[in-house]
Amino acid sequence: MPKASPKSLFGKAVRALREERGYSQEDLAERAGLHRNYVGGVERGERNVALENIVKLAGALSVRTRDLFDSLP
Amino acid sequence: MPKASPKSLFGKAVRALREERGYSQEDLAERAGLHRNYVGGVERGERNVALENIVKLAGALSVRTRDLFDSLP
Repeated sequence: MPKASPKSLFGKAVRALREERGYSQEDLAERAGLHRNYVGGVERGERNVALENIVKLAGALSVRTRDLFDSLP
Repeated sequence: MPKASPKSLFGKAVRALREERGYSQEDLAERAGLHRNYVGGVERGERNVALENIVKLAGALSVRTRDLFDSLP
């Protein structure tokens, strides 16, 4: 089983938190000030998300930035 | 007092951890597989660091990725 990439682990964490809150990708994108397609790409592990967007996503999910990294090494 | 930016907070965290370990920027860059100038820019809060480099820096500093975000909201 290949080791999950940071992008994949991060994407799964965002999806899990989003779904926990009952948000659609569109809801999350709007709250974060990001494009819906971008959020979809993040969740699919396709995006090498940069710091400022990471902080936006954390804020939109009402978690501390560090909490998005629980599943990463 | 203007609110510190995520880039600035992240950079200070990297610098503090690096200095705690007695590494030069060159040492850290080499351990992380990054360029020394890049590490300098990160520490000065000039770089919007992306996920994969964040994970490299955490590994090079022997901390969990989430630990680099203790000082961020």
